[in-house]
Amino acid sequence: MAVKAVIMAAGQGTRMKSDLPKVLHQVAGRSMVGWVIAAAREVGATRIMVVVGHGADAVAADLPDDVDSCLQAEQLGTGHAVQIAIEALGDVSSDTVLVLSGDTPLLEGSSLKSLLAAFDHDHPAAALLAANIDDPTGYGRVLRDGAGQVIGIVEHKDATDVQLAVTEINAGIYAFDGKQLTLALNDLTNDNAQGEYYLTDVVASFAGQGLPMAGIRTDFDQVAGVNSQAHLADANQVMRRRIALGLMETGVWIQDPDQVFISAETSIEPGAHIFAGVHFVGRCAVGADAQIGPDVFADDSRFGQASMVSYSVVRNSVVGEQVSVGPYASLRSGVVLEAGSRAGTFVELKNTRLGERATVAHLSYMGDATVGADSNIGAGAITCNYDGVEKHATEIGARVLIGSDTMLVAPVSVGDDAMTGAGSTITRNVAAGSLAVERSAQREIAGYADRIGKRRREKEER
Amino acid sequence: MAVKAVIMAAGQGTRMKSDLPKVLHQVAGRSMVGWVIAAAREVGATRIMVVVGHGADAVAADLPDDVDSCLQAEQLGTGHAVQIAIEALGDVSSDTVLVLSGDTPLLEGSSLKSLLAAFDHDHPAAALLAANIDDPTGYGRVLRDGAGQVIGIVEHKDATDVQLAVTEINAGIYAFDGKQLTLALNDLTNDNAQGEYYLTDVVASFAGQGLPMAGIRTDFDQVAGVNSQAHLADANQVMRRRIALGLMETGVWIQDPDQVFISAETSIEPGAHIFAGVHFVGRCAVGADAQIGPDVFADDSRFGQASMVSYSVVRNSVVGEQVSVGPYASLRSGVVLEAGSRAGTFVELKNTRLGERATVAHLSYMGDATVGADSNIGAGAITCNYDGVEKHATEIGARVLIGSDTMLVAPVSVGDDAMTGAGSTITRNVAAGSLAVERSAQREIAGYADRIGKRRREKEER
Amino acid sequence: MAVKAVIMAAGQGTRMKSDLPKVLHQVAGRSMVGWVIAAAREVGATRIMVVVGHGADAVAADLPDDVDSCLQAEQLGTGHAVQIAIEALGDVSSDTVLVLSGDTPLLEGSSLKSLLAAFDHDHPAAALLAANIDDPTGYGRVLRDGAGQVIGIVEHKDATDVQLAVTEINAGIYAFDGKQLTLALNDLTNDNAQGEYYLTDVVASFAGQGLPMAGIRTDFDQVAGVNSQAHLADANQVMRRRIALGLMETGVWIQDPDQVFISAETSIEPGAHIFAGVHFVGRCAVGADAQIGPDVFADDSRFGQASMVSYSVVRNSVVGEQVSVGPYASLRSGVVLEAGSRAGTFVELKNTRLGERATVAHLSYMGDATVGADSNIGAGAITCNYDGVEKHATEIGARVLIGSDTMLVAPVSVGDDAMTGAGSTITRNVAAGSLAVERSAQREIAGYADRIGKRRREKEER
Repeated sequence: MAVKAVIMAAGQGTRMKSDLPKVLHQVAGRSMVGWVIAAAREVGATRIMVVVGHGADAVAADLPDDVDSCLQAEQLGTGHAVQIAIEALGDVSSDTVLVLSGDTPLLEGSSLKSLLAAFDHDHPAAALLAANIDDPTGYGRVLRDGAGQVIGIVEHKDATDVQLAVTEINAGIYAFDGKQLTLALNDLTNDNAQGEYYLTDVVASFAGQGLPMAGIRTDFDQVAGVNSQAHLADANQVMRRRIALGLMETGVWIQDPDQVFISAETSIEPGAHIFAGVHFVGRCAVGADAQIGPDVFADDSRFGQASMVSYSVVRNSVVGEQVSVGPYASLRSGVVLEAGSRAGTFVELKNTRLGERATVAHLSYMGDATVGADSNIGAGAITCNYDGVEKHATEIGARVLIGSDTMLVAPVSVGDDAMTGAGSTITRNVAAGSLAVERSAQREIAGYADRIGKRRREKEER
Repeated sequence: MAVKAVIMAAGQGTRMKSDLPKVLHQVAGRSMVGWVIAAAREVGATRIMVVVGHGADAVAADLPDDVDSCLQAEQLGTGHAVQIAIEALGDVSSDTVLVLSGDTPLLEGSSLKSLLAAFDHDHPAAALLAANIDDPTGYGRVLRDGAGQVIGIVEHKDATDVQLAVTEINAGIYAFDGKQLTLALNDLTNDNAQGEYYLTDVVASFAGQGLPMAGIRTDFDQVAGVNSQAHLADANQVMRRRIALGLMETGVWIQDPDQVFISAETSIEPGAHIFAGVHFVGRCAVGADAQIGPDVFADDSRFGQASMVSYSVVRNSVVGEQVSVGPYASLRSGVVLEAGSRAGTFVELKNTRLGERATVAHLSYMGDATVGADSNIGAGAITCNYDGVEKHATEIGARVLIGSDTMLVAPVSVGDDAMTGAGSTITRNVAAGSLAVERSAQREIAGYADRIGKRRREKEER
Repeated sequence: MAVKAVIMAAGQGTRMKSDLPKVLHQVAGRSMVGWVIAAAREVGATRIMVVVGHGADAVAADLPDDVDSCLQAEQLGTGHAVQIAIEALGDVSSDTVLVLSGDTPLLEGSSLKSLLAAFDHDHPAAALLAANIDDPTGYGRVLRDGAGQVIGIVEHKDATDVQLAVTEINAGIYAFDGKQLTLALNDLTNDNAQGEYYLTDVVASFAGQGLPMAGIRTDFDQVAGVNSQAHLADANQVMRRRIALGLMETGVWIQDPDQVFISAETSIEPGAHIFAGVHFVGRCAVGADAQIGPDVFADDSRFGQASMVSYSVVRNSVVGEQVSVGPYASLRSGVVLEAGSRAGTFVELKNTRLGERATVAHLSYMGDATVGADSNIGAGAITCNYDGVEKHATEIGARVLIGSDTMLVAPVSVGDDAMTGAGSTITRNVAAGSLAVERSAQREIAGYADRIGKRRREKEER
């Protein structure tokens, strides 16, 4: 039987106090519904149907191409939502239907695997996920018979005192036989106080038919719904720790797993060292023996083997092998640092390539520039790439020595082996092997300090 | 009956190992005694009297104008301290007197409200706060009769084995009927080993008169006294989390509530995003949709709607709407960034105003300057505002383009639409619409690289 | 009896997934085996013998000079390892032999002291350390008789169901009578499934001889072996907190003990303030009333009384009393800042000395320079210390004013009380009291803005 998944994502999440639809809030750089989709894929779901409602367009737009959505225009209950999804999926009578919730980002494939495994000849109709918690207030309770079979779900507000004492809660995550589910949904009524169609009525219906459900207990984390900013922060902490521990298991050294922020899409090779205060956002990659951090923000960037980056911001850039960056560098965007090169302290690079072993050591801005191998850019050198109207390129050859505080007024090129004198403003191309200088004669006014001293004394006397 | 509060703040806190009087140590940017004062105000205390002793002048100086202090010159016990306070307050016979401790910063008004509510016709003389803790070693235990009435307090050192097994501790926080308290204090003696007047003897006295006290249990956090640097750090962690959760409840996104440091006086609007490593000190304000952090230190500063600030230090400044700051900017003091402006990377501003949409993108220092709307300050441009004796102002008009590495030797002005050439030192005012340049001719010495190459080879041969 | 210590450090630690031998992984800046050596020294071990195996050379090279090592070439079991160590130590028949494990960095001398104290006339042969844990899976269990005497150790895989229920585990840390240990080792056989010599067989042997061991329970932390990157991170968290709490006990203020990284070799005086995000690496020292952090990385550096350092990196440098550093400064190496001096924002110093009250406030690089007392280095000033072949020195006298953006082309000197004009490139020495300037005349091209405006309009029309 093929597995098809329905993900409930129609709720607004008003307790989030956010304009963003609830399931689009991110955990470790991935939307909550994205995490649930990933879990469904882990157990081989061949089709995934997301039921959208509040913020429907935004949620639908965020889904991968191969995930479908259907609209629950009115919030008529969970049973209604699944009905809509089944209609959109078409005939599921020979499928297993997973019903998932878009706001449980910590759910893992392993829990779903256990759920599907429990869905056996003793429990041909359905299985559900449950969890024990200390304080079940507000949750629906799982009711079992003497043999441990699930025979019902009772909502908190409807529970008797004996039922309230049950600490096993219903996670709202189910595996259903498609045929049985379809039949049961057809029989659902909204004959209750809220006038809604409840999916939990299906469970009671199965029990009434002598088709008890399997109830699989998992950790509460796996099924915890995120319903507030505090929940969201908690989920992020758990997920961050999970990602960090997973990397550590492969041999990555992490200074403190609670003080790194590693996105789900980041890959790090064994032997890398990640210090505290590092953020990897988007899709990053880190090679073996690299040392990243402390306090590095990296977004969609790659770091080569044995590269060293500390106290820096790196966006959309490629840091090569054995490259050194920082402390206090900003690779703004589109930067490529070839092997052995260095972007040092108070250095900003944008849309710039440094050749092998090239160095920009301090207080420099290079934008729209290429720097050849083994060249050295002096402190304070700047590419003047904007003329007030357009951006222009600077081309620096190999083995060039750019003197400190050289202004390179683009478009301009400096040939291989050339040099520029400190403090020069270079407006014309420099030929290979030449020294270019723009400078006046140094003059000296003897005794000038006396004037300053006199003014200081006058000021003090005022 | 009016509520008057006595706050005990005479102790030195020797375990703090600090020169600062204990109650002046800060929790989330507010002194410990300041937190207790705030709690007393929450329940409507009309007068607040702080009993000072060690570091009396420093503590008294730190109190708000409408809070009084009285001096306990000799440390003759808690009963003695309250006697002094009552003398300073005058007749309290028709008041309720709260006795609080200056070193319980986590106490909230809600606990005091419960305490005052318990102070009813069954308990006309007094009520106290208690807490259950796992290890009560060292604390005074609350003794109750069979009906649960508080009939005494026994200090740890005086307790019997049965009493030592009691895990309910006395927090030292009381509500008293002013008349009864006054009478009981008059009867206090120092007839004990320490020769001190104990406030706890008042409790025994009431019980002896058939006036049992109400004992209200609260969380230990609420009444935990801070007596060491470790306690202080713990209290800060709890308070920081409390503040963060409170903000999150309103819709503020906080990346990790354990890794932000938000002062009590800071306000943040829903929809703002606060990343890890952010410190808000003093009185800060953050608008909706602002993104602050990672790693921002802000002191007494405001951040407008949709502003974005990362990896920066901002002191006594105003960041307008949709302004971008950092990474790696320092707004040192007195900076105003108008809507849509930008202080970029390696930019330091001091006593400077940027007009709307003005940009100081990189490697720049602007001090005592005004920059008009839509102006662009090139990389490396600097206001030379100090002539060795005095600071001077720089005025830059609207739509100005300051070339890279321009030195603006103040006092100097640059008119609207004017420009300066890269690398120029500008010592005289520039007229509107003009280009000002200070530069020599670029010279080129062909074959200069050969000399360097020769020296390098010689060096290698040495 | 003299105490001699054997430290087992032959294992590879494959679960670490690291090329580094397991015991060389660091906890708070000290190798794990280094921590165990320190604990052995605390209880007066006169000789320490480390049994090395995997990565033998690297481990041996890391040991202090007065610690010996011996090679276990083949991994033939713990009993075999101790045999080799005893052979290397020579006759231990009149000694007490501590057997320790190189991968328990959290072990403290206090636990060993208890162990040695338990080694008394009732337990003349041996004593061992044990700990109770919730989940003892995988650990050897301690077997005791009715009187509480240790009569054996059973490995997890060999344990009966009753033995598996024991939650007291063997830490693998022992004190032995040297004579008894030597005798028992001689009788050891490798007559078991693995063909190894087990040290735990010695315990059974003693029990068989009517020589029951003492079993001292300690906290699990004390004896927890580090066998994975996750364990290593946990041990670092515990140790960092232990170090922080120890400092706080003396009167150091620490903003958050979980968010500072203080090496074991760092000393901090009472009254110092350490903010979050501070890393002290190697041997650092901090004076009273200093304020370090947030976000400071310090390596082998000293910070004088009342110094203030924030958002900076400081390596191999000396920061004097009342010196201010940062935000955003890098003291790269070999920097000395004398009392009252200042290295401000976007300032990098290398191999440079600032005299008393000297200031380098912004956007400056000083390398291989000396700056005299009371001198002021303007924003953007740079020492051009590298001529493409060699580094040269810059000497700046006292009370000098270096103008903004001054390039000091080394070797060069500036005499006392001298000045340089903003934007000057100084290639020749400046005499005391003189003003040196390198500058052209400022020219102005009126109406230039029109050209730019025209190009902009043309661009917009394109």
